Order: sequence, then structure tokens, then C-alpha cells
Amino acid sequence: MSETFFTSRWVERPRRLLDSSEIPAGFRLAGIACGVKDSAPAALDLGLVLCDVAGTVSAARFCDSGVLAAPVVVTRERCDLHGIRAVVANSGNANAATGEAGIEQAVAVQKAAAAALRLDPREVAVASTGVIGVLLPGERIAAAVPDLVGALERDPTNFAHAIRTTDVLDKHVALKVDLPSGSINLSAQCKGAGMISPRFATMLCFVQTDAALDAHTAELLLGVTVKRSFDRISVDGQLSTNDTVILMASGASGVWVEPESEDELRFGEALDALLRQLALRIAADGEGARRIGRVHVRGAGSETVAHVARSVANSPLVKTALFGGDPNWGRVAQAIGAALPGSAPLRFDIAIEGVTVARDGAAVEHDAAALAAAVARDEVLYEIDLEGSGAEAELFFSDLSYDYVKINAEYTT
Amino acid sequence: MSETFFTSRWVERPRRLLDSSEIPAGFRLAGIACGVKDSAPAALDLGLVLCDVAGTVSAARFCDSGVLAAPVVVTRERCDLHGIRAVVANSGNANAATGEAGIEQAVAVQKAAAAALRLDPREVAVASTGVIGVLLPGERIAAAVPDLVGALERDPTNFAHAIRTTDVLDKHVALKVDLPSGSINLSAQCKGAGMISPRFATMLCFVQTDAALDAHTAELLLGVTVKRSFDRISVDGQLSTNDTVILMASGASGVWVEPESEDELRFGEALDALLRQLALRIAADGEGARRIGRVHVRGAGSETVAHVARSVANSPLVKTALFGGDPNWGRVAQAIGAALPGSAPLRFDIAIEGVTVARDGAAVEHDAAALAAAVARDEVLYEIDLEGSGAEAELFFSDLSYDYVKINAEYTT
Repeated sequence: MSETFFTSRWVERPRRLLDSSEIPAGFRLAGIACGVKDSAPAALDLGLVLCDVAGTVSAARFCDSGVLAAPVVVTRERCDLHGIRAVVANSGNANAATGEAGIEQAVAVQKAAAAALRLDPREVAVASTGVIGVLLPGERIAAAVPDLVGALERDPTNFAHAIRTTDVLDKHVALKVDLPSGSINLSAQCKGAGMISPRFATMLCFVQTDAALDAHTAELLLGVTVKRSFDRISVDGQLSTNDTVILMASGASGVWVEPESEDELRFGEALDALLRQLALRIAADGEGARRIGRVHVRGAGSETVAHVARSVANSPLVKTALFGGDPNWGRVAQAIGAALPGSAPLRFDIAIEGVTVARDGAAVEHDAAALAAAVARDEVLYEIDLEGSGAEAELFFSDLSYDYVKINAEYTT
Repeated sequence: MSETFFTSRWVERPRRLLDSSEIPAGFRLAGIACGVKDSAPAALDLGLVLCDVAGTVSAARFCDSGVLAAPVVVTRERCDLHGIRAVVANSGNANAATGEAGIEQAVAVQKAAAAALRLDPREVAVASTGVIGVLLPGERIAAAVPDLVGALERDPTNFAHAIRTTDVLDKHVALKVDLPSGSINLSAQCKGAGMISPRFATMLCFVQTDAALDAHTAELLLGVTVKRSFDRISVDGQLSTNDTVILMASGASGVWVEPESEDELRFGEALDALLRQLALRIAADGEGARRIGRVHVRGAGSETVAHVARSVANSPLVKTALFGGDPNWGRVAQAIGAALPGSAPLRFDIAIEGVTVARDGAAVEHDAAALAAAVARDEVLYEIDLEGSGAEAELFFSDLSYDYVKINAEYTT
């Protein structure tokens, strides 16, 4: 599992990773077709994650768009975010820009699932991905909840498929990690990439563990690891209305992750590697993507370095050059300048895969053949040094290909 | 001329537009091949605009990237921007990110042209467009200056070609306008689109008139009209390192444009229409572009409305939908939300070509057939109303097509 999952040189593998494909104890998942996606044959479009253990500890993160989808609003405002026992997620409809009616439909789904699972509605999160501006068929989903509950199983495959839109790469995994106090399991199911999937997408990620965490630790670790993973990818620079990441810890392994212990450090490493590799897989699955880039900016001022990193990662010129394997570093220089208007003359160094192409803002002689070979690899590193020091920012990004245009232009409503 | 030039419904034609294709009195232009572009057969790549009248009044505008090209720095810092008599412009090399050596090459070109034309170097502007990070062959250009001067003519065609990179649409025009005090001529040659042309581009625009303006009027009118034209287009959201707009007024018509007169109003209208149509032509010439959009945002706070307009105009999802003729307005809602993080729930209305698709942030019933027909037109209007009033912003943008990816990915260095 770890051999095929941890493929990027930019992810440090957790120590003591054991081979396993078991999902953590205490969890079951389901995925069924209920007709939200209008396709024939019927596609899986409704999923459920359930923790059978009372006292589950959870943490959640959402996007901060000004246009938040109804399921994000409902989960954020009507759930106990540290006590989520179940998540109902659908694809095919984002339930965003749907107003009060959209909220009502999301609440109807939440209530139906809570009733069927005998949980408090505050323990049931909802998540959606799909077209924006179309009301979610909440009654249809509510009516399908008994079937959904009946489909609960220890195999995450159907659930993982039910939350997918046009994802091509598989994005679910189960890992076993040997912590000092004992072995624990981690699993995650993830979909999408930025706003890149057709019609709209979103990234959804659900993480389960049988480690025992307190709410503060879950919150802390999810916060840090999301910042180092899903917050650092750009497919098309488009903030979604629906992004949701939920971590649930059943504690069923009996391994207690004490705050500030070696166990916490190791668990955090494993969660970090897991989310980071999933995030890279999202970037690599950016529609039609051929290769992914990593931009790493050093300088003074955390806002400045973050802004430059985003400008490079989101530049369609840098992305098309990456797609074409074109060593045209001038596009990187352009993106740096565009990020910091009014600051000329900027001093900056640029190195691509270790080949320095610009120093102090000006071109330098370099080995063109080495550079051309480097930019044709699957992963390309762009290092930018601005003046000053003390701050750094990193982003992973997909290239921009014909297929991105095709999928987003030719999919008509 | 005006029949074939003013093609957009978003440009108000100047009153009393007379048919003419004469360039204004006092000007000559030239375009030759000097080998900056490495192509066979040799392509035109060096141009010159000259005003033969002493006391020419000029005004200029540049981009404000943190990475400013050497010709921009040289023109901005070493020219009398209100007394420019000549402009030397090359394509094939942007002379950006080239450091002190790049400045020296640009100065060498400026000095060679000044000597050949018997002008003060401060009267000679330089402009470049092409690849970034490669030193301009200034000596080669300086050596070609006598040929360039010898090629001066009253026909702007060669000059207009010499500043083009991959522009497909013609972007030069000559107009005659009847002001209350007499007829004046205006001509302009323009190239590029944002950072969209291959390798890099830039927009360059050179405008000539035989009206007599004072420096203050030239400055004022160019400032206002550039804000309503070239500042309002997005092909790929990429700020260039080299953008340059220069207006030169010879006064040779003998028609004096008095500040705050009806003449000034009419001249301003004509300049506005001219630059606006050229800007729209740049957007329409965005690589591979099929149609152009106009986003118009109303609300409170000029920064807020400008930010939302830019988010919509630069969104690759909105652009691919425009390319595909897809009425997927959810992508507009997503871009609005992304522009204003943390502000949920946002209230906004969206109308596309007059069809209201969202009100108060939520979808409303609409005529889907009318909308589908509307988004298949050459020009598509997106109107967004945010809460509050008093501010508005407008941007024109090209779609995102296969050819954008092709031109930018497959052109290898």
C-alpha cells in the first residue's frame, strides 16, 4: 500500500509504516446510486461514513469563500464539530448558491441520516460536490438513506467512488503506523482538485483513525496538516464553495495519543504524509494534468512570499510551460513581478530543479540541456529567493493542458 | 474605416467620425527586419515612429510590475515624457530580467536613434516585446538604425507588423474626427494582449494625432482613456513586464484643443473610443479566443467591485465556459465568493445578457433557452450586483481555448 501510495519525492514517508489495507476499527462506509447524478447506468453518488463508537472525536476544516455551499453552512453551524459520528456526502450537486431552500434540503438530509442511525443531528455532517446553483434533491436523498445505511461495509471503495466527479486517479488509502504505544490505522477518501472538476468541483477529504485523540489534539493536528497539504495546492486557482475535510478518531485501537508525546509526533507525521500525498494526487489529477510543479519562495514577510508563490502557481503561462516541458523561466520572472507591483527593481534568484537561471533579478548563464531535461520530469521544483529572509511559502500546482479546456468547455449544462 | 474598425456594441462611436485612412500630419513610421526575431524568411521586428514637428507634446503610461523591462525603465527615467518625438520598438525580445546589461543595451538603441534623427536622447522612447530573460542585441539594432530611418514612410503598415508577435487580428487604424474647431486625425498601432502572446507578450500601443494639445491635456486624456481601455482587459490575468502606451500630438492640423472645451470633450471621446476598441480587439485576439466577455459589477466600495470583476474575468472556469458557450453561471457565483473570502453569506444578483439567473445569492428560475442562445454570441455581458451602491467596475476578457494552451505550451525555447 505504502509502496504504491507514497509516490512523490516531496512527501516524507512516516516512520514505521506497516503494510495494511484495513480501514481503522470502528468505521464502516457505504456508497450507493440515488439519482442525484443524472447518468445511465446509474452512477454512485451518495456516500456515508459512520463511526460505530460512541465518543468519537472529530475535527473539521472548510473553505472560506464568500459563497459558501449550504452543506458547509449546515455542518459548520449545526454540528458539534468535535463529535461528528457520521458524514453524508453526495456528488452531482454542490447545493451552493441555493439560498434558504438549499439550507432546508441539507438539513433534511442531515435529519434523515440522524434518524436512521439513531444519532443526534449534531453528530451528522453533510458535504456536497457538483453543479452550483441547482437545488439539492434533499427528499430523494432522504428517501435513499435506509438503503445507504444498509450498504455500510468495511470496504471504502464504494464510498470513495460515490464522492468522485471526474477524478481519474484513485484517492483513497489505508495505512498502519507503529507508534511507540502501539499500532494504529489511518484511512482517507478524497476527491477533486480546487475548483477543477467539471461543472464545479471541490475537494472533499474524510479521514478515519482508530487512534484515541482528544478534541484539542485532533483540532491542532488537522489544522497544521491541512495547511501543509490541501491549502498548498492550486489546480486553477479557483477557491471552491464546498471544500470540506473531516477527521474522525474512533479510539478503537486503544492506543491513546497523549498531547506533546512521541506518539503525537509520530501520529502527526503520518497524518501529514497522508494528507500531503493526497493533496499532491489532487494536483496530479488536475484535469488533463501531465506533471506537477512545486514552487518554494524564501524572503522577508510571510504575506510577500505567499503572494509570490500563489502568483507563480496560478499563472496560466507557467502552467502551460510546465505542460509543454518548456524551460521558459521568464514566465516565472513575470509572475514574480506581477505579484509585487510598484516594487521595481526587484532582486530575486530563480532556480529550476537546482539550475540557477536568474540572480539578482537578471538572467545568468546556465546549462540549457540540463534545464530542458529537468523540466520534462513528472515533478518540477521552482525555487525563488527574494531579498531578506525569515519567511517561506510553498505551493504545489498542476499544469494547464488541452484536457483542462476540453473538460471545462465542452461539458455543457 | 470606421465601419470595419468599430465592431463592438460596447464602444460608443465618436460623433462626427469622418472617413479617412490618412495618418495624422507630421508623422512618419517605419518597420524593417533586423534579425532580433530568429526566423526565416526574416520577419519585421524593428519599428520607428517619428514626429517631424518640433514641440511635439506627448504622454505615456506603463505597467507597474515589480519586474520592469529595461526599455520601460529607460523610457520612464531617461525621457522627457511630455516631449517624446520618436519611439523605437522591437519585437522578438522583451529585454526584461536582464539587469544592468539590459539597461545598457536599451540606452544604446536610444542613443543610436537620437543621433540618426538629430534628436536629444530624452526625446526618444524605446519599447520591446518578446522573450524575457535574454539580453537585447542592442548593437545589432543600433547598426540597423540608418536603414530604419531610411524606411520612414506615411504608411503605418510595416511599423504595425514590426511590433506584432502572434497577433492575428490587425490592430492599427487611422481616423478623422470633426471637432468644433476643425478636423483632426488620429492613428494608432497596437499589439498583443496582456501577457498572452507566445513566450511573453505585452501590449504596446502608439497613438498619433495632429491635434494641438498641451502636456496637461495629453496627460489627462491618456490617463483616463487607458483606464477605460487597456486597464480593463484580461486575457490571462498576467501583468506584463513591458506594457507601454505613448500618445504623441504633432499639432500639425492647426486645431488647438483648448482645455475644458467642447473640442477637448470630442477629442477625448474619439481617443476613448479608439483605445477601447483596440483593447477589445486585444481581448478578442487573446490566443485562440472565440468570444469575449464583459463583466460589470455594481456595489459599495471601489476595491470590492474591482476585485470581484477581476476574479470573474480571470477565472479559467468562467473563461472555459465562455469558450464552450456554456451557460454555467455557477462558475460566476464561485468567482464572486472566491474574491471575497470570509464574507458568507454574500448577497448578489447575477444577470447574463439580461437574463437574471441569481438573486440575493440564490438561483432563480429563468429562461434557459434564452440564456443558452445569449452565451453563444460573440460578446457576452455578465452583470453582477453586490449589496450597496456607489461603485462600479467593468472588465473585458477573452475566453480560454485549446489554442491558448497550444500556443503557450508547444512553443518551446
